[in-house]
Amino acid sequence: MRPSVLAVVTIVLARATPGIALWPQPTSLQTGSSTLLLAPNFNIKVSIPHAPSDLTDAVTRTKQYLQNDKLERLVVGRGAADVSALTKAKSLSSLTLQLNPGATVRSITAEAQVALEDRDEAYALTVPSDGSGAVISANSTLGLFRGLTTFGQLWYYSGGIVYAINQPTQIKDAPAYPYRGFMLDTARNFFSVSDIQRTLDAMSWVKINTFHWHVVDSQSFPLEVPGYTDLAQKGAYSASSVYSPSDVASIVSYAGARGIDVLVEIDTPGHTSAIAAAHPEHIACADATPWSDFANEPPAGQLRLASPATANYTAGLLAATAKMFPSTMFSTGGDEINVNCYTQDGPTQQILNSTGQTLGQALSKFTQTTHGALEALGKTPVVWEEMVLDYNVTLSPKTVVMVWISSLDAAAVATAGFRMVHSPSDYFYLDCGAGGWVGDYPAGNSWCEPFKTWQKAYSFDPLANLTADQHKLVLGGQQLLWTEQSGPQNLDSIAWPRAAASAEIFWSGAGGDGDAALPRLHDIGYRFRQRGVDAIPLQPEWCALRPGVCDLTA
Amino acid sequence: MRPSVLAVVTIVLARATPGIALWPQPTSLQTGSSTLLLAPNFNIKVSIPHAPSDLTDAVTRTKQYLQNDKLERLVVGRGAADVSALTKAKSLSSLTLQLNPGATVRSITAEAQVALEDRDEAYALTVPSDGSGAVISANSTLGLFRGLTTFGQLWYYSGGIVYAINQPTQIKDAPAYPYRGFMLDTARNFFSVSDIQRTLDAMSWVKINTFHWHVVDSQSFPLEVPGYTDLAQKGAYSASSVYSPSDVASIVSYAGARGIDVLVEIDTPGHTSAIAAAHPEHIACADATPWSDFANEPPAGQLRLASPATANYTAGLLAATAKMFPSTMFSTGGDEINVNCYTQDGPTQQILNSTGQTLGQALSKFTQTTHGALEALGKTPVVWEEMVLDYNVTLSPKTVVMVWISSLDAAAVATAGFRMVHSPSDYFYLDCGAGGWVGDYPAGNSWCEPFKTWQKAYSFDPLANLTADQHKLVLGGQQLLWTEQSGPQNLDSIAWPRAAASAEIFWSGAGGDGDAALPRLHDIGYRFRQRGVDAIPLQPEWCALRPGVCDLTA
Repeated sequence: MRPSVLAVVTIVLARATPGIALWPQPTSLQTGSSTLLLAPNFNIKVSIPHAPSDLTDAVTRTKQYLQNDKLERLVVGRGAADVSALTKAKSLSSLTLQLNPGATVRSITAEAQVALEDRDEAYALTVPSDGSGAVISANSTLGLFRGLTTFGQLWYYSGGIVYAINQPTQIKDAPAYPYRGFMLDTARNFFSVSDIQRTLDAMSWVKINTFHWHVVDSQSFPLEVPGYTDLAQKGAYSASSVYSPSDVASIVSYAGARGIDVLVEIDTPGHTSAIAAAHPEHIACADATPWSDFANEPPAGQLRLASPATANYTAGLLAATAKMFPSTMFSTGGDEINVNCYTQDGPTQQILNSTGQTLGQALSKFTQTTHGALEALGKTPVVWEEMVLDYNVTLSPKTVVMVWISSLDAAAVATAGFRMVHSPSDYFYLDCGAGGWVGDYPAGNSWCEPFKTWQKAYSFDPLANLTADQHKLVLGGQQLLWTEQSGPQNLDSIAWPRAAASAEIFWSGAGGDGDAALPRLHDIGYRFRQRGVDAIPLQPEWCALRPGVCDLTA
Repeated sequence: MRPSVLAVVTIVLARATPGIALWPQPTSLQTGSSTLLLAPNFNIKVSIPHAPSDLTDAVTRTKQYLQNDKLERLVVGRGAADVSALTKAKSLSSLTLQLNPGATVRSITAEAQVALEDRDEAYALTVPSDGSGAVISANSTLGLFRGLTTFGQLWYYSGGIVYAINQPTQIKDAPAYPYRGFMLDTARNFFSVSDIQRTLDAMSWVKINTFHWHVVDSQSFPLEVPGYTDLAQKGAYSASSVYSPSDVASIVSYAGARGIDVLVEIDTPGHTSAIAAAHPEHIACADATPWSDFANEPPAGQLRLASPATANYTAGLLAATAKMFPSTMFSTGGDEINVNCYTQDGPTQQILNSTGQTLGQALSKFTQTTHGALEALGKTPVVWEEMVLDYNVTLSPKTVVMVWISSLDAAAVATAGFRMVHSPSDYFYLDCGAGGWVGDYPAGNSWCEPFKTWQKAYSFDPLANLTADQHKLVLGGQQLLWTEQSGPQNLDSIAWPRAAASAEIFWSGAGGDGDAALPRLHDIGYRFRQRGVDAIPLQPEWCALRPGVCDLTA
């Protein structure tokens, strides 16, 4: 799943002179040695009758990026030396977007929300260097959008001129995996709609296609669900820290227009203390102390899973939430269930005793109720790994499992026959390494020390320890931001450019050389900044301008 | 150096109900149980003839904070429950600033720039709860400014009302140590004047009084020094990444008005590769490869210290730089000198051989030249610890030594008889824990792993391993941000609120209970955000609103 040999040669050259610095790296990339100007009257033609408005909006945004990025090349002198080559360069006057024969015209949004197995993000991009027009062709508007994203990464700026080097370009490109995600927890600390929208833009720039929204948790319930509005009214941090249905609609729409599906998670039966504010009858061990006896972090509180009333309430809540999100997937969570909480909960014990169920049987029944409600709406359930590996819950075989505790657990999930999304804490947790955050713990480290560097994330192998037959079970993966120690204040800086690492692994395929990738990662990071996302430096600028010179071995 | 017993009792109460959440904690604090409103016509009277303009400016800023902070209390409900108490509360109509009898009227700036031993930051603050006026008195305008800073932290907001709880307040306050700093490296990556000014504001809010500006280094030389302008012209990252003399003047002035002295550092003789761009004749092993044979990080390059011409050039550069900064202190650096660089440098070896000097003797002579030039200007030299502990350089006894390699090195510096500023990497380096940044180092950690949490910083003991006689050698300390992996993008989030930890240690004295401090640290962090500095969350907001409830033991 790496580019062809020709393309690999190009990448090695690109390390010394990052003239083509695409992220993620296309499947097949051929480049030349000419410089090309973007004509002042450059235009993007959409050669599609009745083009959907989100495609024409994407064209408008692309033109704005071409004009406003003003990214100077990351070389000593920042591209000032390119100017001499520019005087002889041809100009590119147009880019044409066209669907392949037989393709159906649907919006980017609609294409981004179909089931993973039906999603078509492939495209071809040709940029001639002889002055003739560039072309993106694809089977879907979503593929055209991915091509536009690539096209927007070709261009640099110097002294008023927008230009590309190492032209012409020929790209044929398609993702290695259908799921490339980014997870944000908006319950430990709250993020505004604009924070999320800015993050969706950033995701789209590296072709991430799934926003896994861990929207609620034990600490707060910031989601206003029709019919269940008391949960946010009483469980959100404040009235202004709530996502209204119109906020959700605008996030889903913003995401869809950028080729991103929104996979919402209502974590159950654990991580639900916030529900107790409105419905204490459904929550066992709410705020029980010491919290560490009842939960992995404060506050304690879990749905009374053995109670039919609670199961029905939860199924109703999940169904009502699912109706807010067009995705074919819905996550019911299922991580970190605390057994002691249920052992000590009188109502739960009473039901278990009177019905002769074990806790595991009750969890299976609860899950069948909640998943049944979702499947009735056409949703594919998504769960954290414990539901398969620890609790032996009866699940539909199409359930998608997120592997998080350790990357080593992927093999067991595959053995159980489930499709998986790699979300391993040992590679992809963006929050690790900031030390312990619980109080009265002066020397405390976080459980998932150390910090997961971009190099570590980039070294992840999605197929490790899996048999060839099991490879098809890997849907993709994602980096994740749990927000005990994060807020809008460090959202950009903790996520970017690190989260681009998994975006490349799951688009281009694993096995890339991190050192060779670094100049391209600098490039996309600097471009993020030009577009208003605060991606941090990975090295002193001195190193960013001199690929390879700051290598340990240089 | 901790508050009196009465005040300690108050702190413990404040942990459950952080009504008085001052940072740093005053030396002596007495509080009551009344609520006090800020009158709509509240005014600050400066009872000083010919009050300096930086004092009246500080009064204006304080009034703006009172009006604009709009900080809701960090309790469940965010202070909405306080409203009932507000109906019966008295109003505070005025705050009077007055100098103690016999005090000389000088500007805050002038007071902030006197020698450390002469600096007077003490103040007393009385806030009655009976409707009579509040008073700050001090021996200096600098003390009045510190009192204003404290006063500004008393106030909360709810539904249009500004109020304080736990009134009246009586404070007598003075710093435990005269040096309380923050170091920023502007050479690995560049920071704008406004980034620095925002940081100076943040520093002043926690009474940090020294901005240690590590302005240049091997990667870039962003300082325009009169008479030496070619260094920045050729050694800065770009023409726009330069601090002009007027930029420097505005930073020094902005700092001074906020009670902050600017201690500039021109690191010598190592960390000077950037000088080679304009003056290759003065630099040994410039850009030599592999860099790891010649320097601790790329690029290699050190001043040819044995060359009289280079020593004179350097002395001239330092003197010209020193004239840009009114501080009585000036740092000549002196860390991480690479011996191999000089061993392999022909010109250096030729001079050493022809003059019969050892490298150590040449370093002493070089330092005498550079320090001599600074002392002629009335400056106190500041150096990194190696100059005393490793190189046995002859130094003026008044030289200030920064201990950085390990906190354990403080004892040796004290034994050598030098005054010191604690800057230990094992407690105070803000950049540690983000993994290795050199290229081709996929599994690399940083040398100073792990991340230095605020709890770790707060546990620092400035007097550890020192004899009682040596205590007077401790001038204070600082947290430091080296910027290999930082830029304007994460300046706020990597520094705040963590860097407030040392601000409290060196103002209030060490030995405070970090767990008891946490609610106050949340409070100042939330206040920072209200004032536009992106301090990050230390915990989920659920915990920030419930002091102690998220303790490991709760």
